[in-house]
Amino acid sequence: MNTLNTTQAAYLAGLIDGDGSIIAQLVSRKDYILKFQIRVSVLLVQKKERIHFLKQFQKEIGTGTVRDRGDGIAEFAVIGGNTVYPFLKQIQPFLRVKRKQANLVIQILEQLPLTKNSPEKFLDLCKLSDQVSHLNDRKHRTMTSETVQALFQDLGLIKK
Amino acid sequence: MNTLNTTQAAYLAGLIDGDGSIIAQLVSRKDYILKFQIRVSVLLVQKKERIHFLKQFQKEIGTGTVRDRGDGIAEFAVIGGNTVYPFLKQIQPFLRVKRKQANLVIQILEQLPLTKNSPEKFLDLCKLSDQVSHLNDRKHRTMTSETVQALFQDLGLIKK
Repeated sequence: MNTLNTTQAAYLAGLIDGDGSIIAQLVSRKDYILKFQIRVSVLLVQKKERIHFLKQFQKEIGTGTVRDRGDGIAEFAVIGGNTVYPFLKQIQPFLRVKRKQANLVIQILEQLPLTKNSPEKFLDLCKLSDQVSHLNDRKHRTMTSETVQALFQDLGLIKK
Repeated sequence: MNTLNTTQAAYLAGLIDGDGSIIAQLVSRKDYILKFQIRVSVLLVQKKERIHFLKQFQKEIGTGTVRDRGDGIAEFAVIGGNTVYPFLKQIQPFLRVKRKQANLVIQILEQLPLTKNSPEKFLDLCKLSDQVSHLNDRKHRTMTSETVQALFQDLGLIKK
């Protein structure tokens, strides 16, 4: 992860506000103690013909992957807290349209270490992840904090 | 039109690279000597619920109009050379994905005063406008430099 100067950070904030996504998804992980992972990511897309711009951003940011999705669209993705956190911290001051999503993801990542032995705390962060999805207009996802809550209750991890 | 600082200009360049449009359209104008206008514009759209961000950009840039398109989308538009030119000149150094479009529109606007008595020169600028549309993936517009060329030939303004 590179350190971005102000101009780079402001530009990338604008780009993500315009066409990017700041995401927190709940992913089923049978081998995890709490059975779920909160997967955070920052995505940027371009038409396949303009994939070289995504490679330029990847080089500049110093992390992330670029792939041809196969549907005419290429995608640049920064996935996972280790890279999403330092990236978002750098662009957050310049974000406007998606600043709320960034703040929520930063909050999730800062509090995630506290959830190791606390299903209740983990569930709180799942609710923050619901908020991120709501801000992203994704109102019909299958996995929400309610899915996690129901499973935690079934497993006796939290009270009904 | 306000003077933007570096951070503002870089942010807006990123935003336009992500989700904006830099456009040069050929518009029929029966009362014009050359029968066509090259109308330049810079557009930004957001879902209607986020129209307040567009109003924020309008205030910051100090020009342009914001309207509810009526289809759930709100649009911020800077239209016409008098405002598009100083705006593009400020953000051009920071543009990447749409820098070519910006350079072409700047070139059109700088040369437009020279076309007053020259259909040939005007036709050259119409060809630059075609290039802008091509870069914007608009490959099926009805009015191109060929439309203008055909009319100029019919009117005897240029040789066949």
